[in-house]
Order: sequence, then C-alpha cells, then structure tokens
Amino acid sequence: MTTKLILDLDTGIDDALAIAYALGSPDAELLAITGTFGNVTVDQGVRNALAVTELLGHPEVKVYRGLPHASRVGSFAVSEGTRRIHGANGIGEVTIPEPTRGPESEPAVDFIIDAAATYGKDLVIVPTGAMTTIAAALAKAPGIKDQVGGIVMMGGALTVAGNVSAWAEANIAQDPDAADSLFRSGAPVTMVGLDVTLRTLLTTAETRTWRALGTPAGDFLADMTDYYIGAYAAIAPHLGGCGLHDPLAVATALDPTLVDTLPINMRVDVDGPTRGRTIGDPARLNDPVATTLAAVDVDVPRFLGRFMERITALARGER
Amino acid sequence: MTTKLILDLDTGIDDALAIAYALGSPDAELLAITGTFGNVTVDQGVRNALAVTELLGHPEVKVYRGLPHASRVGSFAVSEGTRRIHGANGIGEVTIPEPTRGPESEPAVDFIIDAAATYGKDLVIVPTGAMTTIAAALAKAPGIKDQVGGIVMMGGALTVAGNVSAWAEANIAQDPDAADSLFRSGAPVTMVGLDVTLRTLLTTAETRTWRALGTPAGDFLADMTDYYIGAYAAIAPHLGGCGLHDPLAVATALDPTLVDTLPINMRVDVDGPTRGRTIGDPARLNDPVATTLAAVDVDVPRFLGRFMERITALARGER
Repeated sequence: MTTKLILDLDTGIDDALAIAYALGSPDAELLAITGTFGNVTVDQGVRNALAVTELLGHPEVKVYRGLPHASRVGSFAVSEGTRRIHGANGIGEVTIPEPTRGPESEPAVDFIIDAAATYGKDLVIVPTGAMTTIAAALAKAPGIKDQVGGIVMMGGALTVAGNVSAWAEANIAQDPDAADSLFRSGAPVTMVGLDVTLRTLLTTAETRTWRALGTPAGDFLADMTDYYIGAYAAIAPHLGGCGLHDPLAVATALDPTLVDTLPINMRVDVDGPTRGRTIGDPARLNDPVATTLAAVDVDVPRFLGRFMERITALARGER
Repeated sequence: MTTKLILDLDTGIDDALAIAYALGSPDAELLAITGTFGNVTVDQGVRNALAVTELLGHPEVKVYRGLPHASRVGSFAVSEGTRRIHGANGIGEVTIPEPTRGPESEPAVDFIIDAAATYGKDLVIVPTGAMTTIAAALAKAPGIKDQVGGIVMMGGALTVAGNVSAWAEANIAQDPDAADSLFRSGAPVTMVGLDVTLRTLLTTAETRTWRALGTPAGDFLADMTDYYIGAYAAIAPHLGGCGLHDPLAVATALDPTLVDTLPINMRVDVDGPTRGRTIGDPARLNDPVATTLAAVDVDVPRFLGRFMERITALARGER
C-alpha cells in the first residue's frame, strides 16, 4: 500500500534528507511539499525544496508556500545558532543549480485543506518546522482532523531536554501557540521528538557511501550532511553523529512500527518561564482518549538500514 | 512469594496510606520504616510512623531515623504549602495516641546497608520523600546497587509538569542532588512519578467505606484522607480526588505489572533554572543499558481495587 505524503518543511539539511527518504520510498507517494519557516525563511525553504527535488530527479513534485511567521509576531529571521547548524543557505553552504520551476500559486493552507478532502485516510501530513501552517489549516477547516490518516510531526521533547533551551525544542519554540493548537485540535498526531531523533545518528561512514556513488545527488547529500555532522560535533559532541530528525518523522509516517509510542494528551506551555515546552496536559491526563502518540523509543538498526537503503538507491538514480 | 520492604517515608498522609497498603498486603513483609523529610521533619515523620503502625495493629514494625536535611543545606523546615496539604502534624490534623515505643538507635543509613547484605534480591526499598537517606546509603556502600531487588521511588515527573514548580516534583525538589545521585548510581530504580500517581485518585466515596467499618483504624484512615482530599480540591480541582502517590509506589514494588514503564537513563537537573527537574540524561541516551524504568501508565482499576481491598481488610483488623 502506498501512503500519500505532504511534507511541511523548513528545508534545511535534515529536511532535504527527509525529501530524499520520501522520494526513495516505494511505499510513498510524495504529493507535495509545503514550505514553513524555522531552519530557513519560507522563501529560502521553498527555493531549497524546488532545487533539491530537481537535483534528486523529481521535478514533478509541487511546492506550496506556507505562512512566513508565527501569528503572535510580525516577522521571522533565522537565528545565528540555526545558521551554524544548517548554513546560511540552509543546505550546508553547498551550491546546487537554481530550480527551473517556481512554487504553485495556491497557498499551502488551502492546498492542505483540499488534499485532506481529496485523499482522506490515505494522506499523512508530516510537519517538520514551525507548526504555523498546519495549525492554520486546522483552524480554517477543523474537519481535516477527521479526514486525514494522521499528522506525524517532528518536534518537541518529552523525556529529554530541549535543544534551544532546557525545555524547548526548536520547531516548537518557533511558534509555541501553533504547536499547542495542533495538540489540542483533536487530530491524530504522532510526535516524533528529540526523545527518539537523538537516538538515530548518522556519521561520516554513511556519507562516504553516498560520495562513492559518483553521482551529483550522492555528492550533494554527502557534502550537505557532512556540514551537519560537523555542526553536531561542535554543539553535541557526546552524540557522535547528527540526529536524523525529519527523516525519522517521514519513516514513521510510512511505518509506525519503527517507534514505540506513549498515548498522552499533550500541550505546549505557551505562558510562563517554560514557554515552548511540550508536556502532558494535566487537565486531560485522565481523559479516556489520548489523541497524541509521543514516540519514546525507536528501532535504531531497522530505521538506519532503511534510511541508507532508500536514500542510496535514490542517489544512484534508481528511484 | 513475599517481598521484603523497607519504606523510606516522610510520614505525611499518603505515606501513612502506604504503610497501611504494605501492612494489608499478604505478599509483603514490612521489614522496617526509615524516616526521611519532606512532608514533615524527620522527627515528626518518625513519630507518625511509630504511632500509625501501632494504631494499625502492628507495633512490631521497627522505625529508624534517616538524615534530617539535604547535604547542600544546613537545615530543613516544612513549607507552608506542604502544611496545607498534610496538616501541621503531617496526618491531616487527626489526633491519634502517642506511640508507646521509640525509634531504633541504629541510623537508617546503616540499617539499609545491613538489610541489603542480609536480604539481597528479596529486598525492595521504597523511598517516598527526600532521597537523601537512600542516596547516602548508596554513597557509603555502593555495592548495595547490585545486592537489592530494586528501589521503587515515588518522585519526579517526566511526561507531566511538576507540583512545586512547572518542572519540579516535591520529593525531588527537597534534595535534587540526592535524587540525581540515585539515578546515576547504577541501582535498578523504578520511578513512580506524577505521570502515574495523578491518575490514581481517591474520593470520599472510598473513605466512607472505611468510616463505616466502625474501627479506630477505619476512622483514622477516613478522617486523615478526607483532609487530603479537601486539600486537593483546593489546589487541583480538575483532578476530582487526591493522588495516591506513595501507595502506588508500594503497590508497584510488590507487583511491577501494575504500571507500564519506559527504560531510560534519568538525571535530575541540579544546576540552572530547571533545578529539580527529572529528565532523560542526554549523555546516556544511547547507552545500551538503562538502569531506570520510568512509569508512564498505570492500570488504574486494578490498582484501586487492590488498594481498597488491602487497606479495608487491615482496617477491619483482619491483617
């Protein structure tokens, strides 16, 4: 069975790897990419998504522009820390050809609403940046929550500390209010947070495999990911690699058995000193139904094997 | 099979219910109670433990004095908030007869070390207050960690907010350094935190059952617990009852199948703004062995049924 995917990306490095994972997956149909902000601005992310899909041999993938900043504030700028991790261009300072096509004219919010009506339970939406666009779609058309197969988000940290503060993970910190409304929307959300993504690590041993292919796609993936691995060596040397955040969310969307999950009604702290924290909602702790599944463990060898098989096949030009 | 228990209590209200649960359990042998601080001072807690065991018909239970304050500070005083929850005397302002016996002369730390050597894997230690005494025992005799059957602690909050701050649970907040050293000791620790204890709630429907028994034990348990239920109605009305924190730890020590657990190497934040937070240790996230099991879900009906059966039988004088 094929799962139809919408990836809602702030196309940085691991977002580009998530695109590659989706394109390399025989069990996925990548319907479109919608652009959010976080690792990059929406403009830069849309440009990267267009360019990366072309380089990876899939210029048929449509790209839609999402909302450019959180609703509580009037603008968005990439932080210095984020630039150090993803590079100023978002893809590790690697230069790749400009895209020959542009984004669609329909706004991402409307595209998501239409796609939910069209594809229903076959559709899984995978937001891996600020949750602003997906939250806006759910606010504009709340019925989406009962139409789609699921929303598998990369973001948050439940059993481990955050990565932009002791309590906040980057995607949530970009727009805590949007993430909170996503958790409270009633949509079937799977949270793929730092709890599991910091367990799925890539090293230069794997990127060497890609470079050895001798293809432009292989070179790009290797150069870009080496930049990311270098950033991780500087900021989190204890890990011994880079976290495969966004690809794990895509992999989980295609095969939920890759992670162990805890059913729990989540919230985001939107006020107080812990703004941006993802945590169980005490007011809904004893509700009989939990709408969020928080991933708390992952089958690392199975995921990493699949990650390398799918992306390497794509970079070889086989998919 | 009978499990030998040492309960390391700051005998407040739910600690007294934990004593009653242990005494009412045919599968438990309550070796002794050691006194720590938190809900009350060590002196008050030792007095309460002696008095409660006598009232419940078990004057044979030995009580040992533990350490009176955290090692980082020179003294301990009960907070105003804690007094409101447990009453100034720790047992809901209920007056019960003074104990006819006193505590043992051997310090709790040495008793725990001796008991670990004597009883080995048959022994489970259940700390439900500040972790100061159990941490001191592990520091003085690190070999305990390989001798005992387990340490089932009530404390912490992993997937839900704390109860003394947005991030800290009361028992951990009393001595974060001691709790951190417990998690890092290598001992087999099960953390029974607010994640599960706020799901196991008692109401006045249950305390009426005890009062209807017409026994001094039933009256005491009902009056004391009603005080606690009243305090919860004031501070956490959304719950609709009082959390059975310490009894759930004892029940888990006797039957680990009552909870679902997540294997994770835990730490306590001892520095920075989140001092007192229990969280996964990033430096040990990918260790092949996790020494802590964090309880993340609980079989509520099975626990509550057992809780009422055991404590009611005890209060009827049958155990």
